[in-house]
Amino acid sequence: MNDFRISNASQFEGKIVTVQGWVYNMRSSGKIKFLMTRDGSGIMQGVLVKGECSDESFDLFEKLTQESSVQVTGVVRKDPRGNFELGVQKIDLITMADAYPISLKDHGVEFLMENRHLWIRSQKQWATLRVRSEIIHTIHEFFHKEGFVHFDAPILTPSSCEGTSTLFSTNYFDEKAFLTQSGQLYGEVGAMAFGKIYVFGPTFRAEKSKTRKHLTEFWMVEPEVAFANLADNMDLGEKFVEYVVGTVVEKCGKELKILERDLKELETIRGPFPRISYDEAIKILEKRGVGIPWGEDFGAPHETALGEEFGKPVFVHHMPAEIKAFYFKQSDTVGGPGVTGNGKYALGCDLIAPKGYGEIIGGGQREESVDALKRRIAEHKLDEKDYSWYLDMRRFGSVPHSGFGLGVERTVAWITGAEHVRETIPFPRMLNTLRP
Amino acid sequence: MNDFRISNASQFEGKIVTVQGWVYNMRSSGKIKFLMTRDGSGIMQGVLVKGECSDESFDLFEKLTQESSVQVTGVVRKDPRGNFELGVQKIDLITMADAYPISLKDHGVEFLMENRHLWIRSQKQWATLRVRSEIIHTIHEFFHKEGFVHFDAPILTPSSCEGTSTLFSTNYFDEKAFLTQSGQLYGEVGAMAFGKIYVFGPTFRAEKSKTRKHLTEFWMVEPEVAFANLADNMDLGEKFVEYVVGTVVEKCGKELKILERDLKELETIRGPFPRISYDEAIKILEKRGVGIPWGEDFGAPHETALGEEFGKPVFVHHMPAEIKAFYFKQSDTVGGPGVTGNGKYALGCDLIAPKGYGEIIGGGQREESVDALKRRIAEHKLDEKDYSWYLDMRRFGSVPHSGFGLGVERTVAWITGAEHVRETIPFPRMLNTLRP
Repeated sequence: MNDFRISNASQFEGKIVTVQGWVYNMRSSGKIKFLMTRDGSGIMQGVLVKGECSDESFDLFEKLTQESSVQVTGVVRKDPRGNFELGVQKIDLITMADAYPISLKDHGVEFLMENRHLWIRSQKQWATLRVRSEIIHTIHEFFHKEGFVHFDAPILTPSSCEGTSTLFSTNYFDEKAFLTQSGQLYGEVGAMAFGKIYVFGPTFRAEKSKTRKHLTEFWMVEPEVAFANLADNMDLGEKFVEYVVGTVVEKCGKELKILERDLKELETIRGPFPRISYDEAIKILEKRGVGIPWGEDFGAPHETALGEEFGKPVFVHHMPAEIKAFYFKQSDTVGGPGVTGNGKYALGCDLIAPKGYGEIIGGGQREESVDALKRRIAEHKLDEKDYSWYLDMRRFGSVPHSGFGLGVERTVAWITGAEHVRETIPFPRMLNTLRP
Repeated sequence: MNDFRISNASQFEGKIVTVQGWVYNMRSSGKIKFLMTRDGSGIMQGVLVKGECSDESFDLFEKLTQESSVQVTGVVRKDPRGNFELGVQKIDLITMADAYPISLKDHGVEFLMENRHLWIRSQKQWATLRVRSEIIHTIHEFFHKEGFVHFDAPILTPSSCEGTSTLFSTNYFDEKAFLTQSGQLYGEVGAMAFGKIYVFGPTFRAEKSKTRKHLTEFWMVEPEVAFANLADNMDLGEKFVEYVVGTVVEKCGKELKILERDLKELETIRGPFPRISYDEAIKILEKRGVGIPWGEDFGAPHETALGEEFGKPVFVHHMPAEIKAFYFKQSDTVGGPGVTGNGKYALGCDLIAPKGYGEIIGGGQREESVDALKRRIAEHKLDEKDYSWYLDMRRFGSVPHSGFGLGVERTVAWITGAEHVRETIPFPRMLNTLRP
């Protein structure tokens, strides 16, 4: 293997190196030939000049096709604009590529999605997925630094976490198993054993909705903290999102430039993020001409309006209890202490990203009373038997606790400015999309 | 929220702090009472002495049950053995726990598995899962440092990677989808776009085998590198395993001590690891009295014998082609260059852990010829149509490439000395085990 990578070309100035990669583009300018090679870490221009470069390589240059694999040997040097280029001495062909289906011109999305396995070689897709990789690494780094234990929730589960209408199921030997919709309930188990944990894994929703924010298979990070209340939860979410955005801005300048992402805008994403109650949000929506009756959930226009109002991520807390899941702690007042039992509000908090990228965090404080939870499970027409292990968290040392889930793809979409979440994951799974 | 955590008690010597946690154990010695509290980061002894501690707290102490949640306030001080303990001033009860089903005495495994959600609070399980968390973090850290892009393979796939007998399936809208058995084929796509990638995610095998090394749902890390051959692949695996073990020894001393793991043995796990061909392995097995005919796969006794022979992880390479998957590059000789087409050997490499922990790495060099692959797909009675995108990796810039998969749970089992992989994941999924 070869230590040289285009991304660290600056360390090789003046040295002879071999780029191992693929032909990205070629052009001629009189007797000089230019060969753009990509090696996965970046793209480098090679310059072929008669006398410096072997005649065989000149001949080969004429035959090369896009995406053919090559080894290009030459001297690393700075070009007049300060980029590092290669003074090519020799090109060795590894494999000549067939006529490549994706040219540098525009193609329809359907065609590109069918060729997703090749499309990801294109600059914007490549840059988006590099940012995704950095975001995922930053997520692990943040929670590790903060003393959280990485705690895997199971993917195959015997019952549902977020309602039963969007479940994928499989035969599990003699019974039925469901693909997890969220690791939260298991994450709560982890918080009681380790104090602070985070679940990170794929989650599944058999959603029939075809929007730019929905995938059937998506990745979530779900921290859960014992002895944390709703305010602590928003503090954690704020610190976390600020850290992720800050790190991406710091480390992914090259990728964000390819994506033409406005860096200035990202640089303003710093805490404190506004925190408004659902009641306040309703008033803002009314004022902005997209009012909804109290008790309804937000849709895309409402999230967009809240983004416009604040220009940065905004927490909405204290939602109507009736639209939230059974496990939320409830309260009769906004800001007051929670009640044991049913209240008007759920102690939830959603973080809405600007520019219509939607809810990137959903979470809140959990109900810690075993009796209140049992009642809630009955009201939601769930089977208490399925939640017996979950109720045990309240029977054996219940404590106030909170957590949230952050959707990786929506976060990548927001940070990279992607039009659709399908571009933020290598192989998106959507309604009618299971290939490649 | 509270900044104090038992794991960083040393930073609070002489200060008054509040431990937020759960009652782990209690004992009395005359008029002095001892309260062991766990907070998820560790266990701390609190000492109650009349006059220093409130009378109400003394009364409460008498009523406390195991796993009740409490806040214990007191002064952090060093005990005569150098540990930090708490001179308790006050105990506040959060919730009194019901009679806790798991006592500090022994229970049967079946019972403990049914109460897995509580069992993980016990010291050895807690320590094992903390080591798991550290191993996972170290895996991400290693590949990030080495310039690999984190590249997620899909979980829902339209076809199989490792044979069709152990697949879980689900209805995916109007067609059938399978839960991935390995992200490798998709990882190869990533290597052609990014040069070096790693897939990290859950994988599934509907195995009916009930052994101490099998789960139906387990996590794998699968690096894949373009322009890497079999020897490069073993170099990477060796460096990786050495790094993971070294980091765990460095960072998890406390956990390994709880697990009574022999640190000296782990400290010897340094490269170079022996590399032997399958042919050589067959001779060693013969010599050690567990001979098998050439062409057969290793079972547990053979892996154990190889571990005894070398006392550290050992790579076995150049296996019989006929027992390996369709995507391996093949060769007619051990050590010779690969052939385009069928050979006697597959350019595979498995890393066998010592002491019967089995194969922790399986991998090798991939076939890069589109024609050879097509033939292989037909021979394995697979449907070429399903692999059209995979074949595209050979049509458009094929290069030699290699990779491997490391099973997280087996690695955790080996490093922690766990008896069974079920203890190395929070919620193991096995034949007949889908709960909690």
